[in-house]
Amino acid sequence: MTDSWSNSAHNASHEFGIDLHLDRKGPGLRTGLIEALREAVRTGRLTPGTRLPPSRSLAADLGIARNTVADAYAELVAEGWLVAKQGSGTRVAQRAEPRKTSPAGPPANLARSRATYSMLTGTPNLAEFPRKQWLTAARRAVTAAPHEAFGIGDALGRMELRTVLADYLARARGVYAAPERVVICSGFRHGLTLMAQVLRARQVRAVSVESYGLDIYRDLLTSTGLRVPPLYVDEHGTRTEDLAGMRGVGAVLMTPAHQFPTGIALRPDRRAVAVDWARSTGGLILEDDYDGEFRYDRQPVGALQGLDPERVVYLGTSSKSLAPGLRLAWMVLPEDLVPEIAAAKGHADWMSSSLEQLTLAEFIASGSYDRHVRAMRLRYRRRRDQLVAALARTAPSVHVTGMAAGLHALLELPRGTERSVVQAAARRGLAVEGMSAFRYETADSGWRLPEQDALVVNYASPSDSAWAGALDALCAVMP
Amino acid sequence: MTDSWSNSAHNASHEFGIDLHLDRKGPGLRTGLIEALREAVRTGRLTPGTRLPPSRSLAADLGIARNTVADAYAELVAEGWLVAKQGSGTRVAQRAEPRKTSPAGPPANLARSRATYSMLTGTPNLAEFPRKQWLTAARRAVTAAPHEAFGIGDALGRMELRTVLADYLARARGVYAAPERVVICSGFRHGLTLMAQVLRARQVRAVSVESYGLDIYRDLLTSTGLRVPPLYVDEHGTRTEDLAGMRGVGAVLMTPAHQFPTGIALRPDRRAVAVDWARSTGGLILEDDYDGEFRYDRQPVGALQGLDPERVVYLGTSSKSLAPGLRLAWMVLPEDLVPEIAAAKGHADWMSSSLEQLTLAEFIASGSYDRHVRAMRLRYRRRRDQLVAALARTAPSVHVTGMAAGLHALLELPRGTERSVVQAAARRGLAVEGMSAFRYETADSGWRLPEQDALVVNYASPSDSAWAGALDALCAVMP
Repeated sequence: MTDSWSNSAHNASHEFGIDLHLDRKGPGLRTGLIEALREAVRTGRLTPGTRLPPSRSLAADLGIARNTVADAYAELVAEGWLVAKQGSGTRVAQRAEPRKTSPAGPPANLARSRATYSMLTGTPNLAEFPRKQWLTAARRAVTAAPHEAFGIGDALGRMELRTVLADYLARARGVYAAPERVVICSGFRHGLTLMAQVLRARQVRAVSVESYGLDIYRDLLTSTGLRVPPLYVDEHGTRTEDLAGMRGVGAVLMTPAHQFPTGIALRPDRRAVAVDWARSTGGLILEDDYDGEFRYDRQPVGALQGLDPERVVYLGTSSKSLAPGLRLAWMVLPEDLVPEIAAAKGHADWMSSSLEQLTLAEFIASGSYDRHVRAMRLRYRRRRDQLVAALARTAPSVHVTGMAAGLHALLELPRGTERSVVQAAARRGLAVEGMSAFRYETADSGWRLPEQDALVVNYASPSDSAWAGALDALCAVMP
Repeated sequence: MTDSWSNSAHNASHEFGIDLHLDRKGPGLRTGLIEALREAVRTGRLTPGTRLPPSRSLAADLGIARNTVADAYAELVAEGWLVAKQGSGTRVAQRAEPRKTSPAGPPANLARSRATYSMLTGTPNLAEFPRKQWLTAARRAVTAAPHEAFGIGDALGRMELRTVLADYLARARGVYAAPERVVICSGFRHGLTLMAQVLRARQVRAVSVESYGLDIYRDLLTSTGLRVPPLYVDEHGTRTEDLAGMRGVGAVLMTPAHQFPTGIALRPDRRAVAVDWARSTGGLILEDDYDGEFRYDRQPVGALQGLDPERVVYLGTSSKSLAPGLRLAWMVLPEDLVPEIAAAKGHADWMSSSLEQLTLAEFIASGSYDRHVRAMRLRYRRRRDQLVAALARTAPSVHVTGMAAGLHALLELPRGTERSVVQAAARRGLAVEGMSAFRYETADSGWRLPEQDALVVNYASPSDSAWAGALDALCAVMP
């Protein structure tokens, strides 16, 4: 038997005036015939109303059993492709419209052109993902998992992971975290979305945000119906003392360990002022600890959360320490927020894979996480040193600021040069962001941020093979 | 050196009037001292305002270097636990309030009692999850993944998985699915949430739902601001002919292949009527194909989506075929919905792990998925046969209805007995749902559903070791 029935079906197809090209596909005659008929209707070769040959004659033409054809017709009737009426045989249904033949092009985000090098913020060195160790953890976790782990599970996350994280965060970040207060989410933005919903339900109208930061977070808050009055960032971090004068602010979103993107650690007295504000007003501090593990000149400063676990919501993530592709992050909540977040999370059924949660729990418990963070700390530190040294050689007037921490540094530029430097970098195939991309000024803030021109440079993300080229391109465009 | 510094610190601690019990914890003296001091403040042993001993004298008492103590103090000042003022030494900060000592009890959902057996709907046999094959797929997928796979990725999902699914769904479910129209989501409810948002943005006011179904889906739609007028389900499935008389309905949520929970396949002419309605009104059909892979008496009926891919949104999931714990599901969209869903999904950053997506792609492409579904089809079919046989023996008056398909069957009970049967089952340790749990009647529907007493029995989910006991308990409570 050949791959096509076109010739053998010729007799039967003549009865209804078209040549029935039925390419045989898939396993089995019956399935192949069904698919061929479906395809013929879809592509318009069999038009609505067309009467099909009686099953007996088509079967004879094809040299197959009549039942096979009758079954195929019955199936397509059941699916709505064909209609069978007593006395008038089987016809192509009226509603089976031919599909559009022009396929859609690739979505815009696939079609966009890519730079040769990227020093855009937000991504660690993806080439360093510890694949083997992760797979070892996955094997152990999936093999040892109880059957119920494959079920729907607790909306707040697997207790195994919450327990391991509570221990890790206490040890590494000074977070007070009973496992019951740890909630697994699929990224910082997921956690912030849940918090925004809960705050709105609590009648909060405004969440203050830092005057430098990511616009996607501000957009997320405003789309939930919250106002986002800015809090000024100066050389000692965020001016938390200004919170006292702000009306109707129920929470503040901050990056105290390493302000993003200025790279400043919040001054101790300002940490205290923030907690005092939260206590006296009943407000909440949302502590975005996005890269707290990475400090190069000293031990990391502990999280603000430890100062008052009932007034600070701690938000951490594996996106910088491991990989954003895992979509695993965590929140540590004040006790009274747990039921509200659980309700918001459970209602939307927005949960992470149990198997990935168990894998991360095993990865941390086995010590692999600590080892990976230590190894990355050395590599990123070396990268930062190389960046500083290269700039000192080639562009001594450019000042590198921001703490020796995290994945990025700030390069201060002469006034009025930022935009042209970003454009010059793009022409050399280097994607990099200027400080202005992170500046948040609104008419009602009552002040203006200093017009500091600067680049925000992610020195961590280029792969080892791209690093030298990226650094060369960067130095070449410095004023 | 011992595990406690209480004795050696006695002299220094006398200076401020309390006995300084510092348990040594963690690696290194400095870290241990920091943690011990933090803990002392947290638990209230060091109260706000308390003056700490000068670093020199505490160091002497502890027999450690003065710098270690000075470093620890500096760290705690940076974190806000302590304050240092020129001339007045180091004190415990005012804001470091002792934490509540009464720990929260376990959350309600952990504390709830569990039945010995469960035949509640929604879960496949979790004991049958193909752990080895899944890990094999994970190893291949994670090893072969490009570096960029560990990054944030396309909000619509990994193209590898979308391509494999497009092929699988065309082959197994008759779905017309170009990869660009396939969107990965983390469960049916995630897909429905996104659809509800997009429909609301399109000014749709109402989504019709079947008169039998899950209340969580109705709640999800109403919480987005949509009305959910019911569509009557009779012995031939959902009365799609009633859609024509319903005002302002922009979409209908349906389970055409296997109505949940009645177990009826939508009659062919009603499939056609639904598509006609969608075409003539510009409405959308949301096709919930939750268990389409499982049919025992014949080949599964193909998806409605194939009839008109521009008017039907197909929603499928791995929750029944593999495990709900994976949180991997998919939608196949009309072309014009793709950008709107992409915007809704990307805005919320609600994405699944890249690694799990690549693992599922490899699992399907390698044939493991088909093999698993075939194996489960045999097992579940046997379970269904055993259920029917056991009831025929022990409760011949109970009629088993619903197609030979999926994971559940309907047991029709004598009028007025449903509630007492559910309660009797609970007393025997068997959790099972009555039909009334799925009935949706509203005052404005204009009709009443027949008061058919019935049990909705998931015969698939008990493990092999629990099956005999579950079946015995079920038969024992039949009237």
